[in-house]
Amino acid sequence: MNHLPTKEDIISAHERIKTYIHNTPVLTSETLNKLTGTDLFFKCENFQKVGAFKFRGASNAVLSLPKKALEKGVATHSSGNHAAALSLAAQMNNIPAYIVMPENAPEIKKQAVAGYGAQITFCEPTQEAREETLGKIVEETGATFIPPYDSYKIIEGQATAAKELIESHGHFDLIMAPVGGGGLLSGTLLAANYFSDETLVIGGEPQNADDAYRSWIDGVIYPSIKPDTIADGLRTSLCSRTFYVISKFVSEIITVEENEIIEAMRLVWERMKLIIEPSSAVPLAALIKRKEKFAGKKVGIIVSGGNVDLAKLPW
Amino acid sequence: MNHLPTKEDIISAHERIKTYIHNTPVLTSETLNKLTGTDLFFKCENFQKVGAFKFRGASNAVLSLPKKALEKGVATHSSGNHAAALSLAAQMNNIPAYIVMPENAPEIKKQAVAGYGAQITFCEPTQEAREETLGKIVEETGATFIPPYDSYKIIEGQATAAKELIESHGHFDLIMAPVGGGGLLSGTLLAANYFSDETLVIGGEPQNADDAYRSWIDGVIYPSIKPDTIADGLRTSLCSRTFYVISKFVSEIITVEENEIIEAMRLVWERMKLIIEPSSAVPLAALIKRKEKFAGKKVGIIVSGGNVDLAKLPW
Repeated sequence: MNHLPTKEDIISAHERIKTYIHNTPVLTSETLNKLTGTDLFFKCENFQKVGAFKFRGASNAVLSLPKKALEKGVATHSSGNHAAALSLAAQMNNIPAYIVMPENAPEIKKQAVAGYGAQITFCEPTQEAREETLGKIVEETGATFIPPYDSYKIIEGQATAAKELIESHGHFDLIMAPVGGGGLLSGTLLAANYFSDETLVIGGEPQNADDAYRSWIDGVIYPSIKPDTIADGLRTSLCSRTFYVISKFVSEIITVEENEIIEAMRLVWERMKLIIEPSSAVPLAALIKRKEKFAGKKVGIIVSGGNVDLAKLPW
Repeated sequence: MNHLPTKEDIISAHERIKTYIHNTPVLTSETLNKLTGTDLFFKCENFQKVGAFKFRGASNAVLSLPKKALEKGVATHSSGNHAAALSLAAQMNNIPAYIVMPENAPEIKKQAVAGYGAQITFCEPTQEAREETLGKIVEETGATFIPPYDSYKIIEGQATAAKELIESHGHFDLIMAPVGGGGLLSGTLLAANYFSDETLVIGGEPQNADDAYRSWIDGVIYPSIKPDTIADGLRTSLCSRTFYVISKFVSEIITVEENEIIEAMRLVWERMKLIIEPSSAVPLAALIKRKEKFAGKKVGIIVSGGNVDLAKLPW
């Protein structure tokens, strides 16, 4: 028996984190509606705390811990948005956060995590070093490891973005989300399934990191090997939980090329005046690529985040 | 007797343009609240049609024309947001727009104006050539010249941004707007005066284009001579109407340096994930510069626009 989050689990998660998270705005663009021939609604998680949807899952994971575990703090290894999200969620609960980061992580990410009061341990930039360092810290401190997506508590939290979108804007024909490790896409799938069950959900993925697409086609988890994509949030592999949820519920995964991602990103910057990170442009790029198929549909897009190095833009 | 727009004029203007404009979102940022020690509300005219507040005034000017004049179309000389705003307002009313642009205007601006169906005439990049060319076109076509800010119809339209802000978020201690030609600041002053009369209004201006500041101090209109500022929307001079309204109602004009503008702009991009143009960062830069003075206040900022060349960022 699988412990798939139930409808009630997601409702509880939302109640749990409601006062911590932002119920982010939903924005529209006539220009993009015309361009795609669809009726588009962007759920702006780039406006979420720490600039990404990751804060939803991290908050739910932290707030779901039993009191004794909570006091000992939380730990993870990450160089990205999950580290910042977990650090802030810990800070808001006055508990320690232990973050293992590769020593070559961007300075701006180190500063963000340190700014949220986390205790950072640097390690060599290999998966093994990260896991080993984290293992030691967990052993020494008794902190709970909070993975970035391989946890149903995380997935329940991420589901609340699509839940809010459906609550504020009613039924959608289609909701799209990017897929990397699959936490956001899994949450979106569960939310649609429970709160708007005729809504199709489609994942967008970079062609240069198409492990989720191939995993979905072949019914087996392929690891993401040397993914070479500008969409830095989508380089990770599926885990068993996200593979299970995606396999069960997803309508389709559409892959897009690097130039399509950059064009879609620039379109949103120029026309919507929104700073979105490359990963967030992937679903829109997928929609544009297949626009004939979706003409006339009401489409929601989960904009995953807005953390971009402004000194290194792809144009 | 001065024809200053009355409260009823502004209410009528708002009714007139309501179905044409966006009632733009108001966004907040805990980070910027902490940084400034104030309670900040950003009225996002970067999300307005054509990406700037200018569409409000242009719409009101067009929609206020008598039927006969309307049919003959509208004309202006501009290389900036006003040209795009007037072109779109004309297009939405199915009337011709004749735009005189200096031949060295940025390609992106030419394309935007052409995209809204305007008839563009290029001229030498001098004020004389612009006015002469425009004069000829007006004579030939019978179109009405719609100036960018030296018109109370324009000012009434610009007033609706602050009116919406006050209507959606109640009383403010202070509302800030940038000042170039003074249309937006004048409209903001009138809106505050009529709809929230204990609200102070402060203008922000680049030190390198401080003609409005000096005009206000000395009580005489100084032209803006060779203004060297990144805030390209604020290089223009006051006109008699905006000078009058500003002199009568403004609490203060605060000037800021170029690096302060760029820092404030980057802060909004990084922390709020909003694309704002340099001109829009000027009021925030002014607030940051004088933050001790405004500590604890509820402050509205009119974000004037978001039209930036993404290939030429100042960092």
